[in-house]
This record gives sequence, structure tokens and C-alpha cells, in this order.
Amino acid sequence: MISKTAQGKINQGSAVRLMFEEGKILRKKLGADKVYDFSLGNPDQEPPEAIKESLLSLARSEEKGLHAYMSNQGYPDLREKIAHFESVRNIVPMDASCVTMTCGAAAGLNIVLHSLLDPGDEVLVLIPYFTEYPRYIEEAGGKAVLVRCDADFRPDLEDLKAKITPKTKALILNSPNNPSGVVYEAELLEKINAVLLAQEQTIYPISDEVYRDLIYDGRAYPPLLSHMKNALIIYSWSKSYALPGERIGYVCYSSNIEDSANLSLALAYYNRVLGFVNAPAVWQHVLEDNIGLAVDPTPYKKRRDRIVDIFQSLGLTAHPSEGTFYILLRRPDRLSTDQFVDLCKKHGVLFVSAKGFGLEDYVRVSYAVPDRTIEGMAEAMVQVMAEIAETVF
Amino acid sequence: MISKTAQGKINQGSAVRLMFEEGKILRKKLGADKVYDFSLGNPDQEPPEAIKESLLSLARSEEKGLHAYMSNQGYPDLREKIAHFESVRNIVPMDASCVTMTCGAAAGLNIVLHSLLDPGDEVLVLIPYFTEYPRYIEEAGGKAVLVRCDADFRPDLEDLKAKITPKTKALILNSPNNPSGVVYEAELLEKINAVLLAQEQTIYPISDEVYRDLIYDGRAYPPLLSHMKNALIIYSWSKSYALPGERIGYVCYSSNIEDSANLSLALAYYNRVLGFVNAPAVWQHVLEDNIGLAVDPTPYKKRRDRIVDIFQSLGLTAHPSEGTFYILLRRPDRLSTDQFVDLCKKHGVLFVSAKGFGLEDYVRVSYAVPDRTIEGMAEAMVQVMAEIAETVF
Repeated sequence: MISKTAQGKINQGSAVRLMFEEGKILRKKLGADKVYDFSLGNPDQEPPEAIKESLLSLARSEEKGLHAYMSNQGYPDLREKIAHFESVRNIVPMDASCVTMTCGAAAGLNIVLHSLLDPGDEVLVLIPYFTEYPRYIEEAGGKAVLVRCDADFRPDLEDLKAKITPKTKALILNSPNNPSGVVYEAELLEKINAVLLAQEQTIYPISDEVYRDLIYDGRAYPPLLSHMKNALIIYSWSKSYALPGERIGYVCYSSNIEDSANLSLALAYYNRVLGFVNAPAVWQHVLEDNIGLAVDPTPYKKRRDRIVDIFQSLGLTAHPSEGTFYILLRRPDRLSTDQFVDLCKKHGVLFVSAKGFGLEDYVRVSYAVPDRTIEGMAEAMVQVMAEIAETVF
Repeated sequence: MISKTAQGKINQGSAVRLMFEEGKILRKKLGADKVYDFSLGNPDQEPPEAIKESLLSLARSEEKGLHAYMSNQGYPDLREKIAHFESVRNIVPMDASCVTMTCGAAAGLNIVLHSLLDPGDEVLVLIPYFTEYPRYIEEAGGKAVLVRCDADFRPDLEDLKAKITPKTKALILNSPNNPSGVVYEAELLEKINAVLLAQEQTIYPISDEVYRDLIYDGRAYPPLLSHMKNALIIYSWSKSYALPGERIGYVCYSSNIEDSANLSLALAYYNRVLGFVNAPAVWQHVLEDNIGLAVDPTPYKKRRDRIVDIFQSLGLTAHPSEGTFYILLRRPDRLSTDQFVDLCKKHGVLFVSAKGFGLEDYVRVSYAVPDRTIEGMAEAMVQVMAEIAETVF
């Protein structure tokens, strides 16, 4: 028998991953062209040409040892370049020791949480939040403490203050936000920072910035490390460079972060001992020449606009996203979120309930999908709305 | 401040990794050609040509979605092929559901231990053992219970029996063994199996087989799954295909393993929630056409022979390895293992104390190094032995 612990957990599943797997089954049943899958944040764009060229050049290289072990933190030259890039971007000092290469952002979050948390320590998580955060915190021995949001999906600062205890060790923030697409302004970051600094203990902000290159309408992401003391950035190229299956990203922070030297040692330790060992060598080589490529979020913005139009024309309420490729859609008043999700699925439309993201009355719509999927969904949703109108719930 | 837990751990370090890092510093001090580094199991061979060609062909491919997310267990086609390969090799039934792709063997061990262990469960570890096993077990909430070995570095079966308690949930075995290079015979596997099956509870054997393709002298590795009930194989291409920096491997087991369906779910869950998400896509694609390539261990065997000669001519005792690229060297009688390690280091020779592998009186010599490093070591060791002869310890 597997452990009782594991038995209890595997049935929780991830709503996103379950829907992703269900989608595969549904495609076989209804036909692939009759399923409109908005479940997973799986970019349908291809990686930038520069990435493909670097991979090709690496594959052609006769250099020895390209696939060998390196230090658990990653190649020093790459980390040096990233430190320079993030230092300029964030207007803080940073050297290579402040950068640890990771197997994507999920690995980054896991090694950071393991480095910071003692058993029972609390981590503030701002609603709405990526559904896996509480699980990562739990695996690191900590306890997730949820902080309410206002109607604009920005954190309620009074609730934030009220949720802090002597056991609070960190705060996870994710902007641009999955699932809301909201981008936190510099003023908001400053306000959160002020709340954290007013406490007796150090509370580390952990900033999951995997969507920061996907912001629309000419807005820029604020230099977080210059607005928040003791913050760590979690970055991954999964979303910006469309490489989610490859698991490559990093953790970085200012040289001025509290306990900097021990933090670097702890991150290397947990990279090793949790079994990551190091980020894949091939992607470390490829990324070395491709840090900070310009990413064009226009394809996603166009889809956001189209999707907002579709939902409006159906009489549904969606909260326009400012970045990412997610949008929150409110359930129609006459049925529950679960009923709405099931009805959409019946018509081949896969939306994920936002309950797992901390919101009762919403579904998350991931529009990292081709235009034909969006147009197919538009047609199918007309039938969904007709069925809602005709049905007693 | 990082957590107290992390503070306590980072100072433990890994003797192997510390020596690897020290080697880099020593090269700057003494000059790269004056340092003979036998610390890390980092193959100096290059990946097989077929792997390089598949990588090149992948890099050239115009196919879409090659770097996207897939199921947490990995690509079904690849898993199907591995199931067929391992089924034939092990003479047991196996389908794709019994294969989970992992970010190398370290990841495989971590997700297996998390799937099997409840807090306080015990895992038998056979001395000598890979130095990270106890840490992996600890991170999964379990307790490592060490089992003594005989003079040939094979497990003492009486001690094995004595160490089993009602809390024993698994046994980790590693053959060919790191650090001894010993290969467990089928008879020995059967004997261990009999001890485990005589217990009331199920004890899962976890077989770390990353060196099974590196066996010398015409010997073959026994089909473990047909000799041990409820066993899981941990495999990685790191050592056999010289890809340790890339993190690609798998976990597999017979369809007849106890609680098979839940085990697959649990492995997928922990792949996701510990932050691996999935094994790197590029290597899953490359390996799909390259499962079970013939690996020639001759280069390593030649070095083993040369190293045994060198140590013999110096009057030192080494236990000839039957596989892997490690050999155990006994410390000279007149000084402690630590003194011997330090003295060798002074002369530019990096051996790792085998204390972290459970053996007090040995050093591990990793001969995954060029011949010139071996010859340089031979010369340096003459000076080491001369200094030992002249010194009062």
C-alpha cells in the first residue's frame, strides 16, 4: 500500500490537471475539433527563433562535457549574466551568488519554501492564487494562510495585517496574477512592503514573476526588488519563451537580502536533496545567450479582447486581464460554479472552477489556445446559455 | 534568517559535492594539470552518437508543441516503449501506467519515497550506500535504518532481519553499487526477497539501477523485478549515456506490484507537487528513439584495471569493482581516513572519505576521469606514500 499521507492527497488532484486529462478523453469521445480546452496554462506559441537557433547550435557543437554535472546552483557564467540583467532591471545590487538555476518556477518555489520554513511556519497567500501554492507550502512543512482580495482581485490590506502572526515567515505574491491577470502597481507593492516591514520579524516576500513579460496595453512591470525589502524573485522561461515542458528558470534576490550567504547555501542544498540536483544543462546553455529577449504579448492581448467581447455578448461578466493568458469569468447567477463547469463541459468547453484558486464564483479561462478554439467556444457557449435559460437549476 | 531546519542541514554538506567544489578552488591554486580529481561521479565520456543525432534532429524539427507541457507522468508513447523494454528485460508484465518519467534518479527516489512513506516509517539502507539516500528519506518524513555489510560489501542478511520492525516500509538497494562497484548476484537478490516476504507487512524494494549498464567482465545484471516482489526500479541515463547534467530517467515496476493504480497516481502527484512537474521534454523526445542502446563499459574497465595496479604497487588495498566507475580504497593503517584524505589533497589528489557512504576505513575513488588524471595521481601518490612513511601520525 502507498502511504496514508499519499492516499489522502492523490484524491485532491489538481482541478487544472484533472481537466487537462479529462480533455484528452473528451477529444476521443467528441472528436478533437469539438473540444474547446481552456484548462491548462500551456502556451500554444512556439519558442522564439533565437532559442531554436541556440538549441540547434548546441546540438551541432563538438564541445566536450556539455551534458555533465555542474554546481548545484548552475553554471557560474549564466548566473553572472542573470545577476547583471536582474540587477539593472530591479535597480539593486546582485552577484552570481544571488542566482540559483532551477527546474522551472515550481522547483524554485519548493527550494525557497524549504529554505525558509520551519515546521508550522506560516506563509501568506494572496487570493486569488495559483492552486499549487498551498501544496508546495504543505510539503515544506508550513501552513498557508489565505488573504482576502477586493472586488478588483487586489489584496485587502486590512485582512493582510490581520492574518500576520509571530509564525508568519513569508508571503507569496504572483503578479501578473494567475488566475486573474491583474498586475500589481508599484504603489500596491509599496503598501504590502510597509505592512511587512511594520512587523517585528522578517517576512520574506516571494514574488512569482513567470508572467511578467506578458503584460498588455503598454504597461510595465515595476522593479519589484526595489519596492520590497528581502524579496526573492521566482522566474521561469516557461510562459514567456513557451518552454513549459522543459523546466528551466531561476531564483534571485538582491545582495542586501537578509542572511544572503546562508540562503544561497540552503537553495543549493535543497536543489540537491529534493532531487532536482541542477536545472537541465542543455537549457542553461541555450538561455545563456538569450536572457531578456523581447517578448511580444500581442497575440495574447488580441485573444483577451476577443474573449471579453464574446462573454459580454453572451451577457456574462469577465474581468479583463491586464497580462498573463488567463481571465476570470463569473458564473451565471442561476447556477453554481460546479454546475456551470459541468454544463460547459457537456458542450465541449473546458473551463476550470476557480475554487482551487480561492474564488467561489468564478471559472478560470486560459486563452493560450488557437483562435479557432476561441471561435468554437463562442458557438458552443451560445448553446450553453440557451440550455441555462431553458433549465430549472 | 533562513529556517533553523535549513541552518542545521547546510553545514552537513555532501562530502562528494564539497570535494567537487574544493577541486575547482584547488585547480586555481595549483594549476588544473596538478589536480587529480576523483571526487564526483561525472562521466568524462561523451553521450552516444545516436543521442547527439537525435538531439540535432529534434533541434531541426519544425513540429509544433515539442516544448509544451505534457502529462505529469510523461509522454505516453515513450512510457509505452519503456514498459515494453523493461517488461522483456525483467520478464514481468508492465504497461505504460507503470512507468513515470523523472528528472533523473534523484527525482525518482524522492517521488517514490514520498509516495510510500508515512511520518516515521523506516527504510532499510544497505551499507555501503549512496550518501544522499538518508537525506532523501528524511525529506520524505521517514527514517533511514542502516544494514551492515560483510567483508565483500554485500549485505549481512542476519543484520537485515534484525533491523526490520513493524514500521519498515521499504528497502533501498543499489547494484552495481556506488561506492563499492559490487554487483549483487541473483541468489543474493532472492535471499533478500525471502527475508522481506517473510514479514507480515509489505516491504517495497527500491532498486537504484543507474549503473546497471556499466558492468565488466561479461557479467549481466539479473532481471531484478523477476527476483524481487513489489520492487520498483529507479533508472536514469545519467551514467550510461553520460547525461548527468540533463536530469532524465524513470521509475517503473511490474503491473503486479501491490497497489499499482494508486502508486501511479501518487508518483504523478509528487512529480507535480514537489515541483518537478515533468521530466524535461527535449530529453523525453530524444530518448524515445534510443532506449536500451548498447553501452560499452570497456573504457571504465581499463581504468579499473590500471587503478587496481597502481594501488597494489603502492602497497594499498583496493577492492576491485565489478561495475560502475567507483572503487573503494582502504586507508593505510598508520593514519585515519580523514588524515589520508587531507594528505592526498595536499598532493593534489581528491578522494572522498567513504564515511558518508557508511564505511569508516575507506575512500571512494571515482575513475570517470581521463587517463592522464590517473597517471598524474599515480605519481602524486608515490609522494603521498613517501610522506606517510616519514611522518609520525
